[in-house]
Amino acid sequence: MSLRAISAKDAASLDKDLMETGGWSLDQLMELAGLSVAQAVWKVMPPNAGQDVLVVCGPGNNGGDGLVAARHLSHFGYRPSVYYPKEGKNELYQRLKIQLQNLSIPFISAEKFPSALKSSDMLVDAIFGFSFGGPLREPFPSIISQIESATIPVLSVDAPSSWDIESGPPKGGPGAKFMPTVLVSLSAPKPCVAFYQGRHFIGGRFLTKALTDKYGLDLPQYQGVDQVLEIRVDGEGKL
Amino acid sequence: MSLRAISAKDAASLDKDLMETGGWSLDQLMELAGLSVAQAVWKVMPPNAGQDVLVVCGPGNNGGDGLVAARHLSHFGYRPSVYYPKEGKNELYQRLKIQLQNLSIPFISAEKFPSALKSSDMLVDAIFGFSFGGPLREPFPSIISQIESATIPVLSVDAPSSWDIESGPPKGGPGAKFMPTVLVSLSAPKPCVAFYQGRHFIGGRFLTKALTDKYGLDLPQYQGVDQVLEIRVDGEGKL
Repeated sequence: MSLRAISAKDAASLDKDLMETGGWSLDQLMELAGLSVAQAVWKVMPPNAGQDVLVVCGPGNNGGDGLVAARHLSHFGYRPSVYYPKEGKNELYQRLKIQLQNLSIPFISAEKFPSALKSSDMLVDAIFGFSFGGPLREPFPSIISQIESATIPVLSVDAPSSWDIESGPPKGGPGAKFMPTVLVSLSAPKPCVAFYQGRHFIGGRFLTKALTDKYGLDLPQYQGVDQVLEIRVDGEGKL
Repeated sequence: MSLRAISAKDAASLDKDLMETGGWSLDQLMELAGLSVAQAVWKVMPPNAGQDVLVVCGPGNNGGDGLVAARHLSHFGYRPSVYYPKEGKNELYQRLKIQLQNLSIPFISAEKFPSALKSSDMLVDAIFGFSFGGPLREPFPSIISQIESATIPVLSVDAPSSWDIESGPPKGGPGAKFMPTVLVSLSAPKPCVAFYQGRHFIGGRFLTKALTDKYGLDLPQYQGVDQVLEIRVDGEGKL
């Protein structure tokens, strides 16, 4: 199964529709996005296969999705830790951070990131999503380089961070060889999935038919009460 | 398994803690509460056993949980309809209503309620929760009487509506003989569960240990990625 992709511009417009006329708040959308990411982690690595999940969060909404995912992962029995090198100013992100601190989820320093990257069982890349326009600014070139050469599985939220949303991996420099093990597309795949090889999930079980029609998208056939659906398995389909 | 109960006063204080110092918004809490209700519906009546779910919503937060549940039920493949006889003024409830309208979920009129009660496969009672202090005011005495004598299974959210949160069913009048088939307690059971017989779920997978310690509660052992946990089955444990 493959699903039609949505451009970065349309993805921004879809978010606007959801919040301006659809009745949604960012709190609600981010809650369901983060929950879908946490459920995807469970599907690819249940806690008996690994519990230390390092969530790297960027300064925008993709990072917020990562913060919500870290909270659910903690409730699911994982031991998440968060690296949040450039905190977003939005009051929602600050509240999400408080929620994590109340669960004693550690926020690690830049100095500890390289060792955390080695000792974790999985990394969640919640650095940049569909609104990334490049180029990478400090401290992210170094972070992307380290993630790119990490040996643990990486799950990217919405898009592999550093990739152009339309044209995929950068031609050189940090991210040029970045290929996450797992991708969770939110609402719809972005065009850059054409360059992606790996397990691919879709999340965001809240779109209406009117919206998928408006943007020419598919309404995924989610199963049971799942908030994510696996839509493509490449290779052996294993981590 | 049984879980320690929380008084109405402590339940209000817990909500206040979550929102004033815990970093939570009502949007987030209601999203997870409503999702847990929808998951409980799935556990007791998967869509292949019945799809027409009538959600009756009260004017407060219990009704808001019901509105969120109706949305998730629609995405899960049910055909929910909503009876919302006294709409809450909170802008969140109005936004939740818009979300449901965008999914073409019908809001039924008072005139249609008796026939909807007959033709549905299940009723979700999201009329009153832990803040109910009685007495029932119009139009709820009549609604409770009709639900009380309905032949379809009833799932109550947080507490059987009309019951006193501490002392259980009223001594006479509407609700005196009301015994839902399923109860979904949110965060912790209320004292009135002592009078309840039926299937009992707990929802609200977001409490921290600090909060359960503060209020002398148990942290339920949720399974997998479930947002609800069945904690007691009476009788045959079937609808």
